[in-house]
Parts: sequence; structure tokens; C-alpha cells
Amino acid sequence: MAEETQVTAETGGRAPSRRSLLGWGGAGLALGAAAAGGAVAAVRTGDQAVPAADSGAAIPFHGTHQAGIASAVQDRLHFAAFDVKTKDRAELVQLLKDWTRAAERMAAGHAVGEGAFGGLEEAPPDDTGEALGLKPSRLTLTIGFGPSLFAKGRFGLEGKRPGALLELPAFPGDNLDPARSGGDLCVQACADDPQVAVHAIRNLARIGFGKVAVRWSQLGFGKTSSTTPEAQTPRNMMGFKDGTRNIAGTDNAALDRHVWVASKDGAGWLAGGSYLVARRIRMNIETWDRTPLKEQEDIFGRDKGEGAPVGKAKERDEPFLKAMLPTAHVRLAHPDTNDGAKLLRRGYSFTDGTDGLGRLDAGLFFLAYQRDVRTGFIPVQNSLARADVLNEYIQHVGSALFAVPPGVRDKDDWWGRALFS
Amino acid sequence: MAEETQVTAETGGRAPSRRSLLGWGGAGLALGAAAAGGAVAAVRTGDQAVPAADSGAAIPFHGTHQAGIASAVQDRLHFAAFDVKTKDRAELVQLLKDWTRAAERMAAGHAVGEGAFGGLEEAPPDDTGEALGLKPSRLTLTIGFGPSLFAKGRFGLEGKRPGALLELPAFPGDNLDPARSGGDLCVQACADDPQVAVHAIRNLARIGFGKVAVRWSQLGFGKTSSTTPEAQTPRNMMGFKDGTRNIAGTDNAALDRHVWVASKDGAGWLAGGSYLVARRIRMNIETWDRTPLKEQEDIFGRDKGEGAPVGKAKERDEPFLKAMLPTAHVRLAHPDTNDGAKLLRRGYSFTDGTDGLGRLDAGLFFLAYQRDVRTGFIPVQNSLARADVLNEYIQHVGSALFAVPPGVRDKDDWWGRALFS
Repeated sequence: MAEETQVTAETGGRAPSRRSLLGWGGAGLALGAAAAGGAVAAVRTGDQAVPAADSGAAIPFHGTHQAGIASAVQDRLHFAAFDVKTKDRAELVQLLKDWTRAAERMAAGHAVGEGAFGGLEEAPPDDTGEALGLKPSRLTLTIGFGPSLFAKGRFGLEGKRPGALLELPAFPGDNLDPARSGGDLCVQACADDPQVAVHAIRNLARIGFGKVAVRWSQLGFGKTSSTTPEAQTPRNMMGFKDGTRNIAGTDNAALDRHVWVASKDGAGWLAGGSYLVARRIRMNIETWDRTPLKEQEDIFGRDKGEGAPVGKAKERDEPFLKAMLPTAHVRLAHPDTNDGAKLLRRGYSFTDGTDGLGRLDAGLFFLAYQRDVRTGFIPVQNSLARADVLNEYIQHVGSALFAVPPGVRDKDDWWGRALFS
Repeated sequence: MAEETQVTAETGGRAPSRRSLLGWGGAGLALGAAAAGGAVAAVRTGDQAVPAADSGAAIPFHGTHQAGIASAVQDRLHFAAFDVKTKDRAELVQLLKDWTRAAERMAAGHAVGEGAFGGLEEAPPDDTGEALGLKPSRLTLTIGFGPSLFAKGRFGLEGKRPGALLELPAFPGDNLDPARSGGDLCVQACADDPQVAVHAIRNLARIGFGKVAVRWSQLGFGKTSSTTPEAQTPRNMMGFKDGTRNIAGTDNAALDRHVWVASKDGAGWLAGGSYLVARRIRMNIETWDRTPLKEQEDIFGRDKGEGAPVGKAKERDEPFLKAMLPTAHVRLAHPDTNDGAKLLRRGYSFTDGTDGLGRLDAGLFFLAYQRDVRTGFIPVQNSLARADVLNEYIQHVGSALFAVPPGVRDKDDWWGRALFS
């Protein structure tokens, strides 16, 4: 069964439903085989769909890099930051191994644990069950290690802390909530079905019970970025396309230059990995919605309908920065303004109820991958925090930085092996 | 343009993208025509999809009953309860008219306001823009009126308050947060694309600025009910199918008996309408996940894998209640236990981050429609609250009741006309 799982994940081919591998005797297996043979290509509901992407399919878990970075951006997100509660290094290592095995299974569309729901166990089931019957839904699970994990006296990792895994500086206008910031570990779960992403985080939390605890978590209901240049950039909660010139997941030269950590960058265990900046950006959407269209467009440096840069006709036309206000968002975020800095963005819109003042608690959960935050997020955010007129309408309320290790190579490898070996 | 909108909504046929009707001169219109002609049937990502449902299509807004009740359940929800701030009855009536016109447009897949993004307006745009380019996505908008709207000295409605629009009694185990309960008005937005549902609530809030304010709101990431008997019942966050024997949206006899208010029921303005109970049910999922499978199945009275009632083989087999524990959820919720009471359920799973104690704030946002709560939700919930072993794992933390008026008949009609006339 494990071998079969592996083949499916590696080929990225026919995607069995989560139900098919549960093994309820012969009938279950026959049903499984039929389901696997009859996998249906699903299409997402927006015009922004990646052409021909099968949103029911499995994305291979194993590889040189972790999936969920260069992968075509999925529709939904569940993100969790964890505090490590155990003080025992061996116990943490065992958890990372257990998580890796569970992540492999879930990415391939299977329940956690081979015996799940096989009978009337007297023990809790291996899997919580709410994704039973759902497709793999392009689930990716991406782990990161926060600066606090490397603190002296914890797990003996202080000598392995990379120079770029620093405490992010305080930016002008930051209003950070410690309860929505930081974390020893993070897991980014992206999928086209939100139930699949939520199920994955919940089951990792369950496996980690007593060893880790969720510090904060964030549901993202809709993607705001694209790593597939042929697709339209999705709109954020301000109604604008932002991040048009995102790094493409197929542009290996740009990925090597701006996203993947190289061996020569220092921390050898991180080669092939990346750095992830997560920022919870609350939007004052009620104020934004009372701002005239012309002013909104000047603030972004794009028109709202098409998303074209000032004076241009189409979204992807080369922007002429000098035609924009010096404070326009596109201009301030552009590589030419920031010594060539480029980020791979994978953010999601969120709406978390109401703030008690009759306003929606909504905005952008910003996620960006880069090779080094000192030449990536930090200079870009310094530009934006100092001059961007958008700051009148947004507030950064959560922040975290994680070192994202390279991919899990095969069934003997595990998340963080190079760090802990 | 308005006529064109109408035709699309009424026929429920070819669905234009939200972009196609914006009218950016000739090129825009040509593009729009092409988009309308090439509408693609979208398929949701789970096995639970309603067969052959086109999740990109428009659901007609006009009709005898409001859409969003008997309609096939969409994948995502954004729900908002509003406090009415204005004391002026005429202003409230005008808002309901404005909301109705906006809801008509959005349900058909169009931006709010005919001039949206047509040029560089010096005024705020008519539409916030984030659903531009997205399909109608089966959006339904369903309004309800809370008991507080009928209070003496407010809008002169005290004589029209129906007997069933009462304050729900306190049930054993209730732990209600006033900030997540009640409301003068509610709007339920259901759609297959969450951005479309969020956009709709946000734009209604924007239109109501100064007259109403959002009291509380809830995002539902995944449906837990089905009104289409051919579809599998989706799983809730406990991993179980619940509500298998839900009222089908096509079963007119059951709808007339259990869901739609009849003229003879009393309040004439509500004939063709219904009552909506909304309950935010937090699940202690970490505790649930440590409960053995056998115990979980006994608590529900079903097996977890298939969802079959105790001793039966298939989910939809007739349950034999006496084979279950007297405290089994299926048994306690069954019509035979509650004088024939039946509810039309339309609930959604939610996950709203973390509770500060390392636990996910997750559960079920329960939505149920019925002809009279005194013979519907109240007896069923009394049964459940007294005896259901599930109560060890759940807590009701929010509650509201609304009278849901009948449908908007045509372009001259508006939400609440019979109530305010």
C-alpha cells in the first residue's frame, strides 16, 4: 500500500480519491480501483483558473525543493504556526519524521495511517476523517523553522542558524500582535478544496499533541497571487490586481537567483530551501471603499478594471515608473526601486468575522518566498512602509519569518533531516 | 443593460463573466460577448459535487421563495447580521430597495452599479471590484428580519411580528456570546467561489454605510449539508456525515409542510417565507480526536466511513432507532423522536484561527430553515441539549433567529415590501 502511494505521488498522475485507499476489504479496493481509473479533471470556479490545471490531482510531495513554493498557486490556504512544547530533541526529530510520513500520505490523497476506519478500533482513529471522499485537490504542505527554534539551550541548533534568519526589523506603521506573530515551526497547507487544507493542518496538530501546540493559524479563502504567467493575477480585497510581475514557478533562472538558497549562501542544510515571510495585513476596507476610483488607481499605479500600469493598455505591459506618482505602490515595490529585489508571492485574502466596531476583519495574508530577506522583503517593505500611500488603508498586524528547508527527497528522507543530522 | 441582466438571471442559462457587462466601449463589449458564448461548466473539487451542477452559473434571483433555501447547497458561505442604525423608516425602506437592486445584479454575475469602472470617476466606484472577472458562481442572497426589528417604538412593525418570531429559549449547555448573537437583519450569501460571497456581503455593507452596521459575520469554508438527495452528504469537522435525511430542495410536499410559511399560519406578509435559525457551534475537536472510533460511532449512531445508521450498510438506509443508544445523535434528532419535526439544514464548517490556548476555533455554523421554530428547531434542540452525548464535545456560542420573507417577484418588488407596505 505504501509503495502504491509512492508511485501515485511521484508520477503525479491518476489521482485516487481519499476513499480509495482505505482498504475496506475487497469491495473497498475494487471501488478504489474504479475511482482511480475514473479521475475527473476539475476546474476551479473563477476565470482566474490556471489553464488545464487539474484541481483534483495530486502534486508530488518529494523533490529537490518543497512543493507549495514554485507550484502553481492553489485556491485556498490554511496556515499554522506552532510552538514546540517538548524540550527533548529526539522527540522533536521523531515528530518531524511522523509529520513527513503523514504529509506524504495526505498530499497523495490518502488518510493518515493505513488502518484508518478499517474497523471498530478501541483507539482513536489515525485520521480525523473529514477529508474522506475528497480528492487530493493539489494539496501541498510546506514546513518552515522559525528563529526561536535555534535559540541557545533548546535543541542545540544555535550553530546552524543562518545569518538571514534574523528577527525582522520594526517597520514604520507596524502594529503587530504577538499572538499572531512568530512561531518555532510553520506549516503552509495549500489546496483547491479548503476542507483538504484544514484537514491537513488539523491532523498534523493532532499528531503533534503534547509536543507542539498551534500558536496561531490563518485561513485564506482566495489566492491573490499567481506563479503561472499565463493566468490573470487574482484581485485582492481592494479590488486590484497586485503582484503582476511575480516570479513564475517555471522560471528556473529567476527561482535560482531570487528564491532558492544556494550552497554558497552559508547554512549548508538550507541549500535548496528558501525563506518565508508571513504578514497578516488588515485592510480598512470601509475607508478604502469611500475613496474615489481615480485616487485608488493613483495609489496603486494601475487602473482597476484591467490592471494596466499607468499609461499602458494591458496588465502585463512593462510599467513606465516615471509616469506614476513617486508614492505609487507599483513603483515603490518594483525591483528597479529596490536594487533588483524580487519576491515570489503566494498571498491569500482573508475575512475573519467582524472587529466589534461594525467593520469586517479582512485583508491580505501576505506570504513571500525569497533567497535572503536582507535583499528581499526587508528593502521592499522599507520602501513601502516609508512612502506608500496605501499605508493609510492597511495595517500589518502579524509577522513571522521562517527558514524553509529543501525538499524531502524520498521515503527515507524527512523534514529537517539536514538540520538535525 | 438592465434588461439583459434580467434575461440572464431568469433563464439561468449562459452565464456572462462579471467582466462582460462592464461596458468598456466596443472592445469590452465584444470581449463580453465572447465570454458569454464560451461559458464553461465548472466542477467543484470534491466528490460531493452535485452531479452536473454548473458551479459558474447564475441562480435566478426572482421567484415565489427566496433563493438560497431550497437551492442546491453551494460550496461556500459568508453570513452577516446587521444592526439597523437609522431610526428613519423611510431610510430603511430605501436601503432595502437599494439592496434588492444590488442583489439582483450580483446574483446575475454583474458589478453593483451600471457605471462601475467605466472611467476615472471622482466619486467612489459603485462596486468594490474584487469579484470582477469571476463567474456568478451560483450566488444566492437571502435576507432575514430579526425579532429586534419589530420592537415597539422603532419602525412601527410591532403589530406585524409573527408569533413564531420569538426569543429562542435558553437551552441547557448554551454559552452564547452576545457579540455573535442576534441582529436586526441578516444576509446569507452562498456561492461556489468564496470571493463572490464575500464581495456580496461587503458591497451590501458598503451600500448600507451609516444606516446599518455589521453586528457579526461568519465565513463558512465548506458545506456540511446537501439539499440534493443524489449527492453524498458532506462531512462535518467531526469527520461524520450528519443530516443525511435532510429535506430535498425538490420535494415540494415536504417544503410546504416543513419549510414554507403558509397564509393560514398567521403573519400574511411572511407567506412563502420561512424562519432561519443560525447557531455557531464550536467543536472541541482536539478532545474529539482523542475519542476512540467505536465511541465516536456510538455517539452519532452511524459508522464513520460510510455514514450508515447502526446495523445498516449504506448512508441512506432507513435507520432502526432502537438499535442505537438512547443518547445517539441520529436517534435524538430523528423526526420520530420529535413529533415529526423536520428542518432544512444548510450549515457550513468554519475555522477561525486559534483560541489562544493552542486549539483551533473550529466547528459548525448551523443554519436551518423551518415553517415554525416552535415545532421545528426548539423541540429538536431540546432533545439534543438534554441527552446528546455530543454535548461533551460541542458548545453553542452564537445564536440568532430571523423571519425570512418570501421571494422578490420581479424588478418592481423588493426585500420586505409586504412587511413595510
